[in-house]
Amino acid sequence: MASMATILSKTSFLSQPLAKSPNSDFPFAAATSSVSFPSKSRSLRRGIRAGLIEPDGGKLVELIVEEPRRREKKHEAAELPRVELTAIDLQWMHVLSEGWASPLGGFMRESEFLQTLHFNSLRLDDGSVVNMSVPIVLAIDDEQKAKIGESKRVALVDSDGNPVAILSDIEIYKHPKEERIARTWGTTAPGLPYVEEAITNAGNWLIGGDLEVLEPVKYNDGLDRFRLSPAELRKELEKRGADAVFAFQLRNPVHNGHALLMTDTRRRLLEMGYKNPILLLHPLGGYTKADDVPLSWRMKQHEKVLEDGVLDPETTVVSIFPSPMHYAGPTEVQWHAKARINAGANFYIVGRDPAGMGHPVEKRDLYDADHGKKVLSMAPGLERLNILPFRVAAYDKTQGKMAFFDPSRPQDFLFISGTKMRTLAKNKESPPDGFMCPGGWKVLVDYYDSLTPAGNGRLPEVVPA
Amino acid sequence: MASMATILSKTSFLSQPLAKSPNSDFPFAAATSSVSFPSKSRSLRRGIRAGLIEPDGGKLVELIVEEPRRREKKHEAAELPRVELTAIDLQWMHVLSEGWASPLGGFMRESEFLQTLHFNSLRLDDGSVVNMSVPIVLAIDDEQKAKIGESKRVALVDSDGNPVAILSDIEIYKHPKEERIARTWGTTAPGLPYVEEAITNAGNWLIGGDLEVLEPVKYNDGLDRFRLSPAELRKELEKRGADAVFAFQLRNPVHNGHALLMTDTRRRLLEMGYKNPILLLHPLGGYTKADDVPLSWRMKQHEKVLEDGVLDPETTVVSIFPSPMHYAGPTEVQWHAKARINAGANFYIVGRDPAGMGHPVEKRDLYDADHGKKVLSMAPGLERLNILPFRVAAYDKTQGKMAFFDPSRPQDFLFISGTKMRTLAKNKESPPDGFMCPGGWKVLVDYYDSLTPAGNGRLPEVVPA
Repeated sequence: MASMATILSKTSFLSQPLAKSPNSDFPFAAATSSVSFPSKSRSLRRGIRAGLIEPDGGKLVELIVEEPRRREKKHEAAELPRVELTAIDLQWMHVLSEGWASPLGGFMRESEFLQTLHFNSLRLDDGSVVNMSVPIVLAIDDEQKAKIGESKRVALVDSDGNPVAILSDIEIYKHPKEERIARTWGTTAPGLPYVEEAITNAGNWLIGGDLEVLEPVKYNDGLDRFRLSPAELRKELEKRGADAVFAFQLRNPVHNGHALLMTDTRRRLLEMGYKNPILLLHPLGGYTKADDVPLSWRMKQHEKVLEDGVLDPETTVVSIFPSPMHYAGPTEVQWHAKARINAGANFYIVGRDPAGMGHPVEKRDLYDADHGKKVLSMAPGLERLNILPFRVAAYDKTQGKMAFFDPSRPQDFLFISGTKMRTLAKNKESPPDGFMCPGGWKVLVDYYDSLTPAGNGRLPEVVPA
Repeated sequence: MASMATILSKTSFLSQPLAKSPNSDFPFAAATSSVSFPSKSRSLRRGIRAGLIEPDGGKLVELIVEEPRRREKKHEAAELPRVELTAIDLQWMHVLSEGWASPLGGFMRESEFLQTLHFNSLRLDDGSVVNMSVPIVLAIDDEQKAKIGESKRVALVDSDGNPVAILSDIEIYKHPKEERIARTWGTTAPGLPYVEEAITNAGNWLIGGDLEVLEPVKYNDGLDRFRLSPAELRKELEKRGADAVFAFQLRNPVHNGHALLMTDTRRRLLEMGYKNPILLLHPLGGYTKADDVPLSWRMKQHEKVLEDGVLDPETTVVSIFPSPMHYAGPTEVQWHAKARINAGANFYIVGRDPAGMGHPVEKRDLYDADHGKKVLSMAPGLERLNILPFRVAAYDKTQGKMAFFDPSRPQDFLFISGTKMRTLAKNKESPPDGFMCPGGWKVLVDYYDSLTPAGNGRLPEVVPA
């Protein structure tokens, strides 16, 4: 993460729209309206609700120790057995600490882990069900387990050995790696990026418990100011008077097809009677695989897209979603959607093959491109969320711009795949005019250029963000 | 199945308890009682409900064409494209036709298949949720798919080419074998019995639709009279005036530890205030792996257990559950429990490692022995079912009989594993007195004896029931 600090220190495009409140003529109170929000039907609702969608479980869980008690807790942590966190563990701790996984109160105990694996959901004490599709677990090895002994609490420490959290009322249980992988990814083929990064060499035990994080998580990479917590996002969205919030998850550069989709979604929401739909453009900021564009470059690219006016800063909030990426397709897209409910989004745009990738061994996509959308639309605990299927956009040669694909004249459309886009950028070639704003494209070209050491022309290993 | 007909033609032990109604002094109306049945809490209920538990979805789905229309339907079937069923497909058709999988109305369409894989449950139109953990699907290959063409209906035919059912309003979708296996079994290791038998070589497409079965399914193996449908079981249980029904799923011979557990369960239910708890002893009758004892021999063995008075025929209904076996542990135990709700059971006894087996490749059990019980107790759609954890019974050397294991004196107990039991029976040795009734043990010895051709002493391949 250190490299981002230098790269991005001058980027400040987001602090501006977040700081001012351009929609002060839509004060929050004025957005309250007629009909209450039905909780069962999956179709788009015409009735407009007052306020933002409730967090899962009714209350946003925040697990960061309040200032007056931090000193005391740090003293407590110093006396406890220690568990050292990996970079990905820390990202999950960040996720938990801010309530993206509400109502989860810490790393999963076995009952939560099993419900996640088998049901993609958790039953709460009151009998209600919330979605939870991806295990948020902490692995330890035999040696760590032995050190913990009979203690009911442990300190979680960063790679420098500094305590960052306390886990209490702990439960240690077996880490069934094969089963976890099979049930989460629907395959156990070698080469799944997250599995190789975070599971294969992890310990044979999982430790769950109640989490208390000693201080807000910071990465000091110049991007922390874009890492708004669900509570901060809710505050911002309320300040802007949002009466609908539509979230767009992404881990790729934004091209004009994406922009068209987002703009069109806003138009449709206005037609439905919403007065002030706000876009939450929400790039994923945690672990991504080596050939994805790193977060810092993506943020630069998103900045250009806003600067170039492709998206309207007045109705767009750009923020970083701190979760690591699983690439677990239909299972993971539920997590992506659920976490955004907790941040206040009641509409979720779902693309073709969300969180998908190529099969690591066979020559095919790992998931059916339609399964993500279908599974998301049926997922337990997501009944309150309006799912907006992604309309396919492609380059319309007759118009010279990105447009929704018209199946009656397929010959007019050019599909530019991610691979094609990367190849063009690597070779410093230009895509067709209108594919991406020039400023955004330049960032991509610069990124690939930065990877090529002068002279040998070979790409070095990319360090994932 | 043909071999069973000869083996079992003289067995008639069950027709008797099923035919008479020994508890006519507990007429059904008298069993109605005080408190209605709460639907949320998982603990044992003290209140006793009137009548049997409702089937999933509120209505038992029966898919067998009524007599007056059979002729007409057979004529229709003769005109349709044909899909030939395997023996296991026929078992699933049997399961569906009698409503064990209520409210499922036929082989799964993709939305049901995906919900099963990801959520182990189906959401109904009214928003309620029923459990459904095992895909009940029908595979076809490219050639069959081509033959079906644009037809919206197909005839399902048996191995002799006789139409046995019509599938209407069909949907053909991809058969994602690897994903199906990974999400159902939590592993893709080679050597899973059901996978090798029914999935690996199956077609690359699945066909779902509404099922109409032309006649009740019969196997003509001498055991058909024990194959009571959920409706027939409900009728029998009502005739007996059951006010609690506790189901015991099994695919192994009954020893006295099982018997102790069943007897003890009845005692506990009586203590809770139930007046007439009935045991549904419900051996699985569909596909089992090659080294399991075949159904016909198991039924003989169960007969002896009842004859020897180990279980009380007056309060026991023995019937065959027609489902094939997946050996999918925590996933499958939900199916075993859910199907018994449809047959009227409101208590389900769950053992250690239910539906488990050894890992096909690694030297360990495939599932954690406690996961089945835990997953079952949290499973969506099974909230109405009372889960009774299996208390561990072992041979108590001080008493010379099977007894509940007492952890304060482990040295007094002898655990006789299935492997040990089989080895003893194969070698015509006797287990300790009190392990199994002598008549039941003799059946086992006879079974293994029947496998050994005189002279060479080698066991032939066992054909699964």
